[in-house]
Amino acid sequence: MAKGEATRQAILARAFELANVVGVSGLTIGRLAEATGLSKSGLFAHFGSKEALEVAVVEEAAQQFVQEVMVPALREPRGEPRVRALFEHWLAWGQRPGGCFFVGATAELDDRPGPPRDALVQACKDWVDAIATAVRIAVSEGHLRADTDPDQLAFEIYGVMLSSHTFSRFLHEPAALERTCRAFERLLASYRAADPRARTPTPPTS
Amino acid sequence: MAKGEATRQAILARAFELANVVGVSGLTIGRLAEATGLSKSGLFAHFGSKEALEVAVVEEAAQQFVQEVMVPALREPRGEPRVRALFEHWLAWGQRPGGCFFVGATAELDDRPGPPRDALVQACKDWVDAIATAVRIAVSEGHLRADTDPDQLAFEIYGVMLSSHTFSRFLHEPAALERTCRAFERLLASYRAADPRARTPTPPTS
Repeated sequence: MAKGEATRQAILARAFELANVVGVSGLTIGRLAEATGLSKSGLFAHFGSKEALEVAVVEEAAQQFVQEVMVPALREPRGEPRVRALFEHWLAWGQRPGGCFFVGATAELDDRPGPPRDALVQACKDWVDAIATAVRIAVSEGHLRADTDPDQLAFEIYGVMLSSHTFSRFLHEPAALERTCRAFERLLASYRAADPRARTPTPPTS
Repeated sequence: MAKGEATRQAILARAFELANVVGVSGLTIGRLAEATGLSKSGLFAHFGSKEALEVAVVEEAAQQFVQEVMVPALREPRGEPRVRALFEHWLAWGQRPGGCFFVGATAELDDRPGPPRDALVQACKDWVDAIATAVRIAVSEGHLRADTDPDQLAFEIYGVMLSSHTFSRFLHEPAALERTCRAFERLLASYRAADPRARTPTPPTS
């Protein structure tokens, strides 16, 4: 990795941590200069503008999400175990101190059209598609019913996670985590193939 | 209604409309003065502070929600028809131009402890409780299974609605409304009592 690229990566990692606490909008070049000890002019040289910095941070968040949530789940066997692993790592991702970066950023950027919002929408769509893909594999493995609509189940799983955030972080409901897990189990059960033989996990093939 | 109270009501109705567009934080005494044609000092006399105005607007939103969502649903027969009506009116409430006031306000106030956030949390908790109560009645009417956990189903219904907002307003998914309705139907079906005779609607008794 060239030195300039390594520096950019280090700055982005710090910018992402900061954005998780102060929000995407609160992440200014000045604040990032303080947090990194670099000069404002040096940071401008890396990003060019506050907007470009926001886009870069959203993309950094998406990359970290892939590393922390998708990569470990892809190590699980294809089918229901992988769908389950995606959900569990996603849940863990949202339990860091600042909560889920994407939930916070969505709230901030929802009404602010522009490249940062576009980057965020793309990251969320990619994630919904990844869930649907894992569901599709679980159908082809015979773990979930053949008539399962993968996009529908992805929509429903997404709702369980959003409810989880609202009940835990906003309403401070003590049973939020338990309800989240139960809702996810109920959802999987409602889509599970009736034939128990079809549920035997197959060895991982990818 | 005393004249002072009628004026306050009229101001609040306008403040709520405004907050639906500019957000709770964007609702300043100055902006409200412009929108109502009243003087800033007159508005201060009514509310005392920007914070008190925010609390009053959240409470106004909660009252309008009761009128538009709960009151019509309570006219439906007890049991599943009423649970269904709550959901349908709630869905309609969120389809006004600015979207659901509570979703927007939650995003704004989530990280801002204080009386406006407290008022919003209370309004949301009251709503979750109202859903759970309607579910409890549907269980006692024999429409939903006896082992239904009303708070769990309320959590799950809430998730469907949050997913609906994210997929329609943020991701601009064309199938969002269809997915929302299908998710709600699947959820009800998964809790529905097996005995079809138990599903016969009873005449409304409250």
